[in-house]
Amino acid sequence: MPDLATTPPAPYYAVIFTTVRSADPDGAGAVDLDGYEDTAARMEALAAAQPGYLGIDSARSDIGITVSYWADEASIRSWRDDAQHTLARETGRRRWYDRYELRVARVERAYGWSRQPG
Amino acid sequence: MPDLATTPPAPYYAVIFTTVRSADPDGAGAVDLDGYEDTAARMEALAAAQPGYLGIDSARSDIGITVSYWADEASIRSWRDDAQHTLARETGRRRWYDRYELRVARVERAYGWSRQPG
Repeated sequence: MPDLATTPPAPYYAVIFTTVRSADPDGAGAVDLDGYEDTAARMEALAAAQPGYLGIDSARSDIGITVSYWADEASIRSWRDDAQHTLARETGRRRWYDRYELRVARVERAYGWSRQPG
Repeated sequence: MPDLATTPPAPYYAVIFTTVRSADPDGAGAVDLDGYEDTAARMEALAAAQPGYLGIDSARSDIGITVSYWADEASIRSWRDDAQHTLARETGRRRWYDRYELRVARVERAYGWSRQPG
């Protein structure tokens, strides 16, 4: 069953990554898309291994949105500097995306709601 | 062609709304889902009419993520206080969602990339 990231009380940080995929990356079709899914999964695993990682939410329909949550800005910088992450970002620019936007934001307040079981 | 929200230079605010939909709201099936889509579209139009609205990005696969962008916190409060918005939120709690999280965040820096045309 799908679920959402569970984060500690604010403040903490969110990295909001929005993307428009290429209609046909390199004209090479499914091979590129498979590479995309593999790399995206690898990047999620890499993020989860970083100090200060709090969680991630991801959805895709017409556009893609991935929001990762972090304890502080130092954690985000450390993630950014990671060689593998940089590699995937550069590859993504060339092959997988027509456009993307990346926003670093400080979560100031948050609330949630969940249906009672039963 | 899908596209992303285009926002002014930081700082500004983002409201990150993540959701898990009910598997079968009220056990009533498609009618409820139609109501959901209509109401979601109405809520987007309502947000766009508010002062301080900057844009919105939305995607849904296993989970839903909607990120709306705002000039300042006063704009967000004004939107929240809007009666129609409150109505949809309450309806959503009861019928459409098993869980949701809402985060208000201050965007501190941002960058984007776009493929050159041609």
